[in-house]
Amino acid sequence: MSTTFPAKPRIAIVGSGSLGLYYGARLAKAGQDVHFLVRGGRAAITARGIRVKTPAERLHVKKPQVYASTEEIGVCDLVIVAIKATGNGALAKLLPPLLGPSTLVLTLQNGLGVEEPVAEVAGPDRVMGALCYIACERTAPDAVKCRFPGVMTIGKFGKPAGERTHAVAALFVKAGVKCDAQDNLEEMRWRKLVWNVPFNGLAIAAGGVTTDVIMADEGLRTLARRLMEEVVDAAGKFGLEIPRSFVDLQFERTAKMGNYRPSSLADFEAGREIELEEIWGEPVRRAKSVGAAVPRLEMLYWLLRHRVATRQGGAKRR
Amino acid sequence: MSTTFPAKPRIAIVGSGSLGLYYGARLAKAGQDVHFLVRGGRAAITARGIRVKTPAERLHVKKPQVYASTEEIGVCDLVIVAIKATGNGALAKLLPPLLGPSTLVLTLQNGLGVEEPVAEVAGPDRVMGALCYIACERTAPDAVKCRFPGVMTIGKFGKPAGERTHAVAALFVKAGVKCDAQDNLEEMRWRKLVWNVPFNGLAIAAGGVTTDVIMADEGLRTLARRLMEEVVDAAGKFGLEIPRSFVDLQFERTAKMGNYRPSSLADFEAGREIELEEIWGEPVRRAKSVGAAVPRLEMLYWLLRHRVATRQGGAKRR
Repeated sequence: MSTTFPAKPRIAIVGSGSLGLYYGARLAKAGQDVHFLVRGGRAAITARGIRVKTPAERLHVKKPQVYASTEEIGVCDLVIVAIKATGNGALAKLLPPLLGPSTLVLTLQNGLGVEEPVAEVAGPDRVMGALCYIACERTAPDAVKCRFPGVMTIGKFGKPAGERTHAVAALFVKAGVKCDAQDNLEEMRWRKLVWNVPFNGLAIAAGGVTTDVIMADEGLRTLARRLMEEVVDAAGKFGLEIPRSFVDLQFERTAKMGNYRPSSLADFEAGREIELEEIWGEPVRRAKSVGAAVPRLEMLYWLLRHRVATRQGGAKRR
Repeated sequence: MSTTFPAKPRIAIVGSGSLGLYYGARLAKAGQDVHFLVRGGRAAITARGIRVKTPAERLHVKKPQVYASTEEIGVCDLVIVAIKATGNGALAKLLPPLLGPSTLVLTLQNGLGVEEPVAEVAGPDRVMGALCYIACERTAPDAVKCRFPGVMTIGKFGKPAGERTHAVAALFVKAGVKCDAQDNLEEMRWRKLVWNVPFNGLAIAAGGVTTDVIMADEGLRTLARRLMEEVVDAAGKFGLEIPRSFVDLQFERTAKMGNYRPSSLADFEAGREIELEEIWGEPVRRAKSVGAAVPRLEMLYWLLRHRVATRQGGAKRR
């Protein structure tokens, strides 16, 4: 496998949700050779291109390279996995046509256990993961609105960041994304869970509430802190030292968010799937496997799992 | 204070919900001298009496003694408190007109901390509590439907059952209620919580589900068991030994209940108050006061408290 990364790589974007379209459009506008796999809304994107709106700018990719299958795209240098983790069962079919000997695969998915399904198909050595701190939504088949472009952090699966990890991060930086490469992807993922576990979870479990409601309710706010502490303690059992000050920082940041609607709540209320196993189930299983006590996290997982099961089943509720 | 209990006591029923009307009607039909304080539906009861329907029989108290205030009732030998615990703030005004030197006060309320407000007004020595295992609802201002008459257990506040506790239990037995007196009211209350905490609580917190749904979901069922174990362990810290087999017994019984709708869920969905502090809040506080770990019970309390607050506040949800 090659250890260099081409100056102008051939890039595939697998998945045309908000993240896939947003990052793909930024890379394309920066002159990169981007190939989009688009399932829903292909006609609209082919006809009108991709429009991105951020608080600072508007981008329009007039003639994106759009495909209905990864076979049509063919081998790439970089594959960006931007489907929901709940659709990872399709990777065994989606990825192989894109993979040459030196292809890198970067997954943008949330939570724990998202690199493993990629590694099973593509082998572990070429897998990277990104943590995307961003708030954007697909407002039309061909349009993405990004309220908070935020930052992206990239890491290598199971290893410190290498030359190619830094090269991929540089690609995003050149495309206007605040992005860096860091050495411990696993710790980055646990750190992101510190916020996602309580706020995405309680937003649903407390009956459909925004972050300001959780912050204003003494019980829910304390519960969010206890959940964060369980996540931090569980990470500690894996040798990942997240300082307690990181928990305080989450509350300082959340206090400034106003009535923010976490993505899992938005997905849940829109009838879309949520990353139940990646954000709650897998952390519970990993924590328990090393003897970490996570009673509240497990309870939250069970409550959410039931909500999701009965919501999708449909008949039983309301 | 007298230590004997009259053969035909003067009885006041304070509160005209389903329990007050049901037990009051049974006592009246058995020839007892029963005086009902009725707030809502007084005209209907005065005009048509009280009708009770059980799986086995129909009772009709044609001319119940109905009052608009406890001043009109006057001093009684036995006062049965059948208002919701959430209304206990009114006891300081309701009880004094009913109290003579030897009056006994029996509260039918659920949960922990329900004898104390009575004792504050009436003094601790005359206070008794009853655990009512029963399923009934007020189907009209003058009608109660009892699906499961169940059993009643009476105990004395802070002391073993004495002669008068047994006399009161005998009164109910003569009226056709399966009733006995037991020595440890506090333990009886914790035992009832073993079921009420998880099933009343999860029925609401899981999104409005009946007991069969909790039993059929592996996560919720396990969570119910963990909650029961927290209650049992907390009781143990107070020297109240509830065997683990009691937890198993709850599951055996619940499996036979079918799609039972716990009373707290019915109250919550009908917009009525639930016994939030008595069933969840006070057990959490007592458990933590003796260092018992109740992370799931506390989390359930916080989730329920938020649901109740926002439901009552109205504006924030849906």
